[in-house]
Amino acid sequence: MRENKLRQMVADGGKIANAWLAIPSSISAEVVAHAGFPSVTVDMQHGMVELQAAFSMFQAISTTDAVPMARVNWNDPAMIMKALDAGAYGIICPMVNNREQAEAFVGACRYAPVGYRSIGAPRGALYGGADYYAKANETVLAIAMIETAEAMSNLDEIMSVPTLDGIYIGPNDLARSIGYPPKPDPEEPEVVAAIDTILAAAKRHNLMACIHTSGGDMAKRYFARGFDLCTLMNEVGLMAQKCREAIAEAHS
Amino acid sequence: MRENKLRQMVADGGKIANAWLAIPSSISAEVVAHAGFPSVTVDMQHGMVELQAAFSMFQAISTTDAVPMARVNWNDPAMIMKALDAGAYGIICPMVNNREQAEAFVGACRYAPVGYRSIGAPRGALYGGADYYAKANETVLAIAMIETAEAMSNLDEIMSVPTLDGIYIGPNDLARSIGYPPKPDPEEPEVVAAIDTILAAAKRHNLMACIHTSGGDMAKRYFARGFDLCTLMNEVGLMAQKCREAIAEAHS
Amino acid sequence: MRENKLRQMVADGGKIANAWLAIPSSISAEVVAHAGFPSVTVDMQHGMVELQAAFSMFQAISTTDAVPMARVNWNDPAMIMKALDAGAYGIICPMVNNREQAEAFVGACRYAPVGYRSIGAPRGALYGGADYYAKANETVLAIAMIETAEAMSNLDEIMSVPTLDGIYIGPNDLARSIGYPPKPDPEEPEVVAAIDTILAAAKRHNLMACIHTSGGDMAKRYFARGFDLCTLMNEVGLMAQKCREAIAEAHS
Amino acid sequence: MRENKLRQMVADGGKIANAWLAIPSSISAEVVAHAGFPSVTVDMQHGMVELQAAFSMFQAISTTDAVPMARVNWNDPAMIMKALDAGAYGIICPMVNNREQAEAFVGACRYAPVGYRSIGAPRGALYGGADYYAKANETVLAIAMIETAEAMSNLDEIMSVPTLDGIYIGPNDLARSIGYPPKPDPEEPEVVAAIDTILAAAKRHNLMACIHTSGGDMAKRYFARGFDLCTLMNEVGLMAQKCREAIAEAHS
Amino acid sequence: MRENKLRQMVADGGKIANAWLAIPSSISAEVVAHAGFPSVTVDMQHGMVELQAAFSMFQAISTTDAVPMARVNWNDPAMIMKALDAGAYGIICPMVNNREQAEAFVGACRYAPVGYRSIGAPRGALYGGADYYAKANETVLAIAMIETAEAMSNLDEIMSVPTLDGIYIGPNDLARSIGYPPKPDPEEPEVVAAIDTILAAAKRHNLMACIHTSGGDMAKRYFARGFDLCTLMNEVGLMAQKCREAIAEAHS
Amino acid sequence: MRENKLRQMVADGGKIANAWLAIPSSISAEVVAHAGFPSVTVDMQHGMVELQAAFSMFQAISTTDAVPMARVNWNDPAMIMKALDAGAYGIICPMVNNREQAEAFVGACRYAPVGYRSIGAPRGALYGGADYYAKANETVLAIAMIETAEAMSNLDEIMSVPTLDGIYIGPNDLARSIGYPPKPDPEEPEVVAAIDTILAAAKRHNLMACIHTSGGDMAKRYFARGFDLCTLMNEVGLMAQKCREAIAEAHS
Repeated sequence: MRENKLRQMVADGGKIANAWLAIPSSISAEVVAHAGFPSVTVDMQHGMVELQAAFSMFQAISTTDAVPMARVNWNDPAMIMKALDAGAYGIICPMVNNREQAEAFVGACRYAPVGYRSIGAPRGALYGGADYYAKANETVLAIAMIETAEAMSNLDEIMSVPTLDGIYIGPNDLARSIGYPPKPDPEEPEVVAAIDTILAAAKRHNLMACIHTSGGDMAKRYFARGFDLCTLMNEVGLMAQKCREAIAEAHS
Repeated sequence: MRENKLRQMVADGGKIANAWLAIPSSISAEVVAHAGFPSVTVDMQHGMVELQAAFSMFQAISTTDAVPMARVNWNDPAMIMKALDAGAYGIICPMVNNREQAEAFVGACRYAPVGYRSIGAPRGALYGGADYYAKANETVLAIAMIETAEAMSNLDEIMSVPTLDGIYIGPNDLARSIGYPPKPDPEEPEVVAAIDTILAAAKRHNLMACIHTSGGDMAKRYFARGFDLCTLMNEVGLMAQKCREAIAEAHS
Repeated sequence: MRENKLRQMVADGGKIANAWLAIPSSISAEVVAHAGFPSVTVDMQHGMVELQAAFSMFQAISTTDAVPMARVNWNDPAMIMKALDAGAYGIICPMVNNREQAEAFVGACRYAPVGYRSIGAPRGALYGGADYYAKANETVLAIAMIETAEAMSNLDEIMSVPTLDGIYIGPNDLARSIGYPPKPDPEEPEVVAAIDTILAAAKRHNLMACIHTSGGDMAKRYFARGFDLCTLMNEVGLMAQKCREAIAEAHS
Repeated sequence: MRENKLRQMVADGGKIANAWLAIPSSISAEVVAHAGFPSVTVDMQHGMVELQAAFSMFQAISTTDAVPMARVNWNDPAMIMKALDAGAYGIICPMVNNREQAEAFVGACRYAPVGYRSIGAPRGALYGGADYYAKANETVLAIAMIETAEAMSNLDEIMSVPTLDGIYIGPNDLARSIGYPPKPDPEEPEVVAAIDTILAAAKRHNLMACIHTSGGDMAKRYFARGFDLCTLMNEVGLMAQKCREAIAEAHS
Repeated sequence: MRENKLRQMVADGGKIANAWLAIPSSISAEVVAHAGFPSVTVDMQHGMVELQAAFSMFQAISTTDAVPMARVNWNDPAMIMKALDAGAYGIICPMVNNREQAEAFVGACRYAPVGYRSIGAPRGALYGGADYYAKANETVLAIAMIETAEAMSNLDEIMSVPTLDGIYIGPNDLARSIGYPPKPDPEEPEVVAAIDTILAAAKRHNLMACIHTSGGDMAKRYFARGFDLCTLMNEVGLMAQKCREAIAEAHS
Repeated sequence: MRENKLRQMVADGGKIANAWLAIPSSISAEVVAHAGFPSVTVDMQHGMVELQAAFSMFQAISTTDAVPMARVNWNDPAMIMKALDAGAYGIICPMVNNREQAEAFVGACRYAPVGYRSIGAPRGALYGGADYYAKANETVLAIAMIETAEAMSNLDEIMSVPTLDGIYIGPNDLARSIGYPPKPDPEEPEVVAAIDTILAAAKRHNLMACIHTSGGDMAKRYFARGFDLCTLMNEVGLMAQKCREAIAEAHS
């Protein structure tokens, strides 16, 4: 089975600059996948992307050696399994708040006897190879989002679920959940401290530590703090920023 | 009929920073339309956009007050008329090389007796208003691309076609056509001179002078030279640039 | 944030003629949105519309000042949140039968600390404005469908859920659930009495009272009975009716 | 090969109430096809329909016994042949203005030796039957639009082209072309006289006489004048009318 | 209401060769539906098909007299009801493991008072007929997949749920769940014995016995063992096989 | 620039088994591309594929090392250029009947000064590499279909057009054009003789000789006669064949 190169990158120290796709188009997906990101994640939660579009986006990513991943819209086994069947090599699941939810999530990512994923992954096998069913459990990444006060109370219970591979912090939801306004790059000490707490727990459980950032500058700072993977905003946000910069420059 | 505000902007001195859409998605189109461009052009030639996607992109642009335009894929009356029917307030037509082609192009943009555009513009009338058929001829812009050596030989014949509103320079094709490698921001004196020649002709014929640029910096320089409208690369190019910048910053 | 004008209309006496979209097309959506309805609802339950199509339909509605709403396919937080993220200013949720379901529904519509909606609404913020996250909880409408015998037994428990804005009666399901054949415009006294009971409860709880109707005539009668919002069948039913009328007239 | 029942209907006196589809959706197409029209035409010119959507619309029509037809976007052999390959049993071609254009149009509808249509109609053969290639020339209808002053000057030259089956009048373009404002139901004597002239010529050449109408009332009058086929506006126009009627009734 | 001919076929001895669609295209769906299968199932679980595509695939199947069915992606009432609303005459539901799940599944397929399916099936009524709501409960098939060790422990509890029509074995998941590697055509005695056990239970409960097979040869053997319905792999697997055979023959 | 491996294969003796795609889906395209064909051609003429779908199909093919090609719908520069811009490494153009048409076709495939192709190939450059514009003229294949009696009269005029790379025989159209019924695998001596004549001319002009076949058996025979490339029917035909074979086997 085609290797999941993110596993080796984490072992080698991480610093994975992850792309995030919100535009439901294989055209923009392919351009982003060629830009140099080691992994490209299709955002099916807050992105405007449903599965039918995601299928073609995974194909577009597969024209490169970037690792395709999906942020699913909810802790929903049907969605998780379809994203995996379509060739996602990692699932980022929102709102994992307790042990039960974490087990349901991870179980959906693993074939029996580890979990309850259903067999039949036509594109997974095209992309991964003929031994997909034998090796998928060890290859695809299961990454739980930690982004609520409830999850903060259950960090060890969540993070000790067998075969969970990593956690992913959503700073906006985390901030709002603990009483602060959402900010992409948090400044309030309590929010920053919560992030540190989660990071420390991830290190303790030997999990991949991932976080959403507002772009290159914040990612640099969070790589320095020990995160393995930082998502650089999303493609549509980067595009909008550059549009505004170009307009300003044209009129300067 | 809803006014075409580009006409007033040209009268007021121009400096129109035009957006260019190559991604066949109404999602990215709406984001770009909100970024502050006074006009947004759907590129149906070198963009990956066909008419079915363009229809929804024009709708997305219409959620803002940016002026919707189309660069059609060829000097083809069926395509030109459908883009206009869909609400485009300007057509940029590639490869207009001689008088006959210019007349065919402009005629496709105008209802009888000026031209031969067929009547029936359901979305045009929704967007423009109930008096669309009476006023469309004076409202929508017909802009011919000047981008070949042949066109250079026929500047006055082309530019004097009645009701032609403007010309648009494609530096890449122009450069290659006169013997130089294509460059988004031309440096060779002969290419630059050709641009100047076209610009001067446009001024002489009182036409809107438009050019494709590599982004804000080149646009600023070409506004200063007298161009009324500069396209700021395209949205997918700006996005790819920003992706590479963000990756570099994250690892700096 | 862009105001939700339905709130003011209800305060002013209601009589909101709501459109209902079952065709998965932004083209028909835009035409309906221009027809004069103050609100236009995308029906993702019995309409043939999935989220990917709904995104472009919300854009089409946004070219007008009609308020965009969604009837989601189920009491499913992923679907509710995605419809809101896409710019829906109201959610109509089917089959809300008890307190727990009502709380789950309303919670999915509200950001913390009121509910558990996840932050990240790219189109919501484009449509609503930059202060979307601060004001969405007070702006978007949460409307529960009351359409089963079980719900009839739990009217007060459901209607007293904090921040629930309104209820919506589906006459067909309600009739069948209490033992009568489904009819768009119910005649059986027991069905009519059930509607009256629900209406009275809504008034008692100061909620917006909404109902599905078979068209203009039934809507007129139900406005007179005190309903704030009447849906006028759906666009595809109106189209089919008019087709049959036109054929009959042509052959009369 | 499946019979083209329009041929028999014309022989039996015509009065074909034709539907016209402008919404690019197989959902609305199927609803219209079930409404009772003997023929349903996909409008690829002024409708918002491109071929990819038209394919699924032809499928939707084929769930009924309504005859599928297409109004192509231009006198373009590629488009005409693809619509036929997709199962259209009739082609209505806009802007046929002279003998040469009429021959080009009809030739694109016919296999050699009559015309130059290319062989390979996967859906045509599914819909029509295994003997499609042998019998298509005699089955599919070729109908030329007569809608310009130029065409008025060439009626006999156009109408005598071998195997042309009918003509179709577009009142809006015809009116504008001869100097009057476009009206769906023309009143100016000169426009009405032009329609009569075309009708008389069609009768003289034994061709099917077809016209676009503003709906049932106009169709009734034009059936009485001798037209074989009257199109009843289009589905989106009928829908918009009914929406406005329903709103007015609700508030009456 | 249009009859569900599979019910009669089962009464007549079954041997239903069922097609399985994984390509999200109405074009391939129509071709398969014309190939001679009495039933055609849209696979929304492991196929690359979401509901929006499935709608047009059901239309394509409806151009023939093949019975349209859906394998839904999960035991999810929203999905089940939408597939039925779209005209599916049978639902195959994955991973039905116990009584409660079986009741939830069957309830979603039946209108009150039998179940809790919501009323409003625009395409169902077009396809089935005007008496759809009265007769759908007796017409559409509810078929539960038995494919886990847990389900093996609950065969009678599952199979005795009222109005359940049949069961469907997924050999791959079944094998893996009881400790063997997944194989489309199982050979291990324990897996074969499990299939026999399920088949016997189905016969005991007078349910339609269905199984997924690797193609014509396996189907022949399982028809002989008493199965009523055998799915012949899927269309994309058959296509891939034939492609490889053709390449090999070309180079032989 | 990524090499066009078909050029080397022809030099090495050819026997290229080419796939032909008629289903407008990137899912089926990717499966076919993995089946072992050295080249995969998207059929935009008789396939049900328009450009918007073709874009994603080219992406799907690009996940493998099969060479992507397109059979365009007509000798239309807009279509040819868009297919090339999308990454097609070869264009097969229908109905090239004389010198003028051949020159128009080849010119649309080549940048100045050889031809008149317009510059701007976002996906071409992603797929081919940064030096795309410098090397595309020597890389992409221009292949003219010879399939009419008129073309038979102009073989040398057509085949001597500079930079034409090959010819492609469509047996069905060729047969009909010279007076015989269309057959995928022609038997009439005159049709076979015509094929031989074309093949001999191709060899004389040192052009790649290509032909459409009914599958592996015919391809084997035509490879033996000297053809460089044989298309193995199309994917939808192979699928339909295998479906019928599987049904027959199941009931045998």
